Amino acid sequence: MNKIEHIGIAVKDIEASNTLFKQLFNEPHYKMEEVASEGVLTSFFKSGPNKIELLQATTADSPIAKFIEKRGEGIHHIAFDVEDIEAEIVRLKSEGFKVLNETPKKGADNKLVAFLHPKSTNGVLIELCQEIKA
Amino acid sequence: MNKIEHIGIAVKDIEASNTLFKQLFNEPHYKMEEVASEGVLTSFFKSGPNKIELLQATTADSPIAKFIEKRGEGIHHIAFDVEDIEAEIVRLKSEGFKVLNETPKKGADNKLVAFLHPKSTNGVLIELCQEIKA
Repeated sequence: MNKIEHIGIAVKDIEASNTLFKQLFNEPHYKMEEVASEGVLTSFFKSGPNKIELLQATTADSPIAKFIEKRGEGIHHIAFDVEDIEAEIVRLKSEGFKVLNETPKKGADNKLVAFLHPKSTNGVLIELCQEIKA
Repeated sequence: MNKIEHIGIAVKDIEASNTLFKQLFNEPHYKMEEVASEGVLTSFFKSGPNKIELLQATTADSPIAKFIEKRGEGIHHIAFDVEDIEAEIVRLKSEGFKVLNETPKKGADNKLVAFLHPKSTNGVLIELCQEIKA
């Protein structure tokens, strides 16, 4: 895994959090993007080679709505950049990790993504992501 | 903030988690270190320019023991690398963030560290860290 691509943070009010994280980083978000299939509106900040992705639910049954209901706002997942997501899925399955979607799906920010079940990773929801090449 | 320096993950059994994260990263941890003042045993993994820090409590009143009791194992904090931690503390205080220790303290991995209260940062415990120069 090449680096931490981003950390996803579940928030209730993305506009208020955009203001808060602008104060934190001393720099505004550089883009917003809706991922309708996941029921989320996202906002991205840069920190050197890494990103922070704020996530606000757009539907009542969005995973982010359920997360906030259960645990409140906070860190939702860690995403690692990988070269070859399909090879990593095969490798991690053989190591005993539970892959939530064995076929990578289109995520925010031009990525193919797959998630590992937190029960197999010390309670941490891990996303693998691979840049989609043009 | 230059980059995500590391992500801290609270675990119950650091040896078992060392094995798990070795499988995840396809590479073993590169060091372990006890921080007696915080009541933690730590273990570090690399992911490119970033690190993962596993944290196991060594005392019953360790912040990590309390975290696990309340929320279970999982992501505990995000640490950002900063050039000048004292200047960042002054800036963030003036922006309204609540700094838990206004005087930076010695953390693991040769760093000066300070924490922001999660109530002022969308439920995310944020650590600032600056490399201690020899």
